[in-house]
Amino acid sequence: MNVPSRRGFVNITGAVESAVVRSGVREGLALVNAMHITASVFINDDESGLHEDYEKWLEALAPHEPVSDYRHNETGEDNADAHLKRQVMGREVVVAVTAGKLDFGPWERIFYGEFDGRRRKRVLVKVIGE
Amino acid sequence: MNVPSRRGFVNITGAVESAVVRSGVREGLALVNAMHITASVFINDDESGLHEDYEKWLEALAPHEPVSDYRHNETGEDNADAHLKRQVMGREVVVAVTAGKLDFGPWERIFYGEFDGRRRKRVLVKVIGE
Amino acid sequence: MNVPSRRGFVNITGAVESAVVRSGVREGLALVNAMHITASVFINDDESGLHEDYEKWLEALAPHEPVSDYRHNETGEDNADAHLKRQVMGREVVVAVTAGKLDFGPWERIFYGEFDGRRRKRVLVKVIGE
Repeated sequence: MNVPSRRGFVNITGAVESAVVRSGVREGLALVNAMHITASVFINDDESGLHEDYEKWLEALAPHEPVSDYRHNETGEDNADAHLKRQVMGREVVVAVTAGKLDFGPWERIFYGEFDGRRRKRVLVKVIGE
Repeated sequence: MNVPSRRGFVNITGAVESAVVRSGVREGLALVNAMHITASVFINDDESGLHEDYEKWLEALAPHEPVSDYRHNETGEDNADAHLKRQVMGREVVVAVTAGKLDFGPWERIFYGEFDGRRRKRVLVKVIGE
Repeated sequence: MNVPSRRGFVNITGAVESAVVRSGVREGLALVNAMHITASVFINDDESGLHEDYEKWLEALAPHEPVSDYRHNETGEDNADAHLKRQVMGREVVVAVTAGKLDFGPWERIFYGEFDGRRRKRVLVKVIGE
């Protein structure tokens, strides 16, 4: 992942579906997690208005500024808020794989949530089963 | 699930235990998730006072009204707050299955959390192992 | 776990790594969860300033006092806030096991988060795969 802004949401459902197909697993579980601690993987709606609501809400719950309000930022970082926002949205999702596909409800889509972007990060997909 | 009010919590531990028994799995993992993006599955205490505390707290963190405060509600929905509340409480739980049973601490119970009810929704239980 | 203060964070990465090695699993998933409903297991940074930020932030989101503000505390408990804080931080993590090791990004570490300590509690580690 390489989100060009500090924060953003990216629909990664298609990439996860491809990984499930490549795994050959028909019945099992797929784990999808951010490998970085200022990012999230979560499941919700692919609706841009909702994503704006998340952005505004998370910024109210854990404001980026003033950066000096956070002890973590005394290390030279300015991303303490990103570590907090990521806890609200979560690190990972675990999705059932049934008949070789992600076993989803009607509106479930997988998103990567970036809270400290403008650099390259990775998402892990692990599929187990038979 | 069909919660007759907008919001509510339902103990689904017994239904999940039955699904584990039916699966025949003795050692493994059970995934339990809401299939809808305005609902949660979480583990906590079966205590009605605590559930009132959750309701009040979530409503303070992500108020239902004014509905016009949310961009998502411009789509004609009035449930943006439910999408936020569900992120705090989580989509899913993964529980160890040991000797054919949910491997729980003394007070762990599984709940369905509804934040936009008055219609039929589903919960998925997937058990893997041997 | 036995955290001598009401709240605290403990790095349990080494203990989980040992459990993975003992399991003999080379490819699979490791579930790590708090067995108590006023504690969390989560993944983030091993940085003491950040942990102070989490403590301050969680106390602002779900204050311990006044204890009489919570219906749950009418049962004689004083830990309603701990049940709320644990939902923000989460109950569990699921980590990929690859080539016999926890498949982690560069800064991922596993923590036990205690919100109602001064007594003995347990963490469950379940490793499945082959």
